[in-house]
Amino acid sequence: MPKIETIISPALFHLHKSCLHTANIVVIDILRATTTICVALQNGAAEIMPVSEPEEAAELAKQGWLAAAERNGSKVDGFDMGNSPQEFTREKVGGRKIAITTTNGTRALCMSIGARNIFAGCFLNHKVLCDMLKNDGADVMLFCAGWKDRFNLEDTLFAGAVAAELNSCFDIKDDATLAAMDLFSMAGADMNTYLQKASHVNRFKSLHIESDLDACLKFNTAPVLPAFSNGIITNINHEKPHHA
Amino acid sequence: MPKIETIISPALFHLHKSCLHTANIVVIDILRATTTICVALQNGAAEIMPVSEPEEAAELAKQGWLAAAERNGSKVDGFDMGNSPQEFTREKVGGRKIAITTTNGTRALCMSIGARNIFAGCFLNHKVLCDMLKNDGADVMLFCAGWKDRFNLEDTLFAGAVAAELNSCFDIKDDATLAAMDLFSMAGADMNTYLQKASHVNRFKSLHIESDLDACLKFNTAPVLPAFSNGIITNINHEKPHHA
Repeated sequence: MPKIETIISPALFHLHKSCLHTANIVVIDILRATTTICVALQNGAAEIMPVSEPEEAAELAKQGWLAAAERNGSKVDGFDMGNSPQEFTREKVGGRKIAITTTNGTRALCMSIGARNIFAGCFLNHKVLCDMLKNDGADVMLFCAGWKDRFNLEDTLFAGAVAAELNSCFDIKDDATLAAMDLFSMAGADMNTYLQKASHVNRFKSLHIESDLDACLKFNTAPVLPAFSNGIITNINHEKPHHA
Repeated sequence: MPKIETIISPALFHLHKSCLHTANIVVIDILRATTTICVALQNGAAEIMPVSEPEEAAELAKQGWLAAAERNGSKVDGFDMGNSPQEFTREKVGGRKIAITTTNGTRALCMSIGARNIFAGCFLNHKVLCDMLKNDGADVMLFCAGWKDRFNLEDTLFAGAVAAELNSCFDIKDDATLAAMDLFSMAGADMNTYLQKASHVNRFKSLHIESDLDACLKFNTAPVLPAFSNGIITNINHEKPHHA
C-alpha cells in the first residue's frame, strides 16, 4: 500500500528528500499561495511561474506577464497583484501568464523539484486533488509551506483533510500525518472559527485582510489540478499527470 | 505576560535560539530519556550526566559511574542500563552518579545550553514542573526531542499538557503550542489508547518493550525537578532554580 507522510515545515524537508522522486508531493500554503494559484487557474490563467524574487517577476512583466508579489502578507508596491485570491479575477487573469513570488509557498514549490509530480493543494481543489492521488497510487508527501519555517495550523489542517480522504487506500504511519488528521477532525466543519486562534489569521487581522480567510476555506470551489513542471504551473485537470 | 512556545523538532530549534537565554526550556523525551531521568532522580540517583557517545559513558564507568546507553530503542551491549525507566530502580541507582546517552533526549539537553534554566520534563513530574514554571514566570520553551528530527505524538502531547496547565498565566500564540494543547485535549485521560497509533509505540512493540509505555504515562509519580546545569542534571525540587 502506498504511504502518506506530512512535512510540517520546510525545515524538515531534508528528512523526506530520499523518497522524493517516487512520490507525488502536494505543496500546501492555504494562506494564501496555493489557494491563489487554484483561483487563478480556475479563472482561466494560462500558466503561472513561481519565482523567488520580486525582481524576477518584474522582469517577466516587461515581457507582458502579469506580475504578483507578496512579502510578509502585503502586496509589494508596483506589482499587478499581491497574494490575495480575491485579486485574481477572471477579468484580470483570463488567458494571461502570471509570475508570482510569495513569502513561503513559491519557495516550497521550488524545493519540491525532483518529485514524481508536484501539485498545489488547497481546500478549493481538495476533491480533484484527492481523486488524482488515489488514482495514481504513488506515495504522497504533504508539504506544508508554513510561515518562515514555523509550523502552522491551517496548512496542517489541510494535510489532515487530504490524509482523511485517502486513509482507506494509503498507509499512514508517521506521527505528523496522524496529528494532522486529528487536528482536522477537531476543527470540524467550522474551520474559520477553529482558525481564529491561528498566528497567521491574527497576522491577517492586523493587515485588515480577514475577508481572504473565508475565501481560502471553501471546499471544492476551484476544481483545478495545478501541476508544477519545467518551471511552470498549469491546470492538468482532465489530463493525466506527467510521470517520471 | 510571559509566553510559551513549542519546538516540535530539534530541526526547528534554530528558530527559537535568539530568545533562549531569557527562557526556561523544558526538554521533553517522553519515550524515554526525560522519563528515565525523573525516575532515576526519584530513586535517589545523586546526579546524571548526559553524554553524546557510548564511549564517553564507558569512560565514566571506569571511574565508578553507572553507565546507561541506548541506540534505536535498545540497550547498547556492555552497559549497566539502557533507557528503560524500569531499569533505574532504587537498589541500582540510589546514591550513584549516572552517565547516560540516548538517541534523542541527551542531544536535545545539550542543544539547550545557554537557556536561563534547562529542565527535564515528563508526565511523571508534570505538576512540580508546572508549579516551578509558574512561580518563576519567565518565558517557556517546550522542546520536543522527537525521533531523529521527526515530529512525534508523545512529546507533543506532553507539551500540550504543560501549556494547558500554564494557559491562564502565560501568553500562547504560536501554532505549535495551540496544536499541542488540542492534541492533548483530544487524547484525553487515556493517553495509552490514544498513543497506540504513534510511530514510537509501534517501535516499542517491535522491540517487545510495551510495558515501558504505561510507566511513561503516569502523572506525578516522580515529583522531582531535574535541572541541567554545568553538564550535570540534579534534582532541585525544594530548591530555587539557578537564574542567569
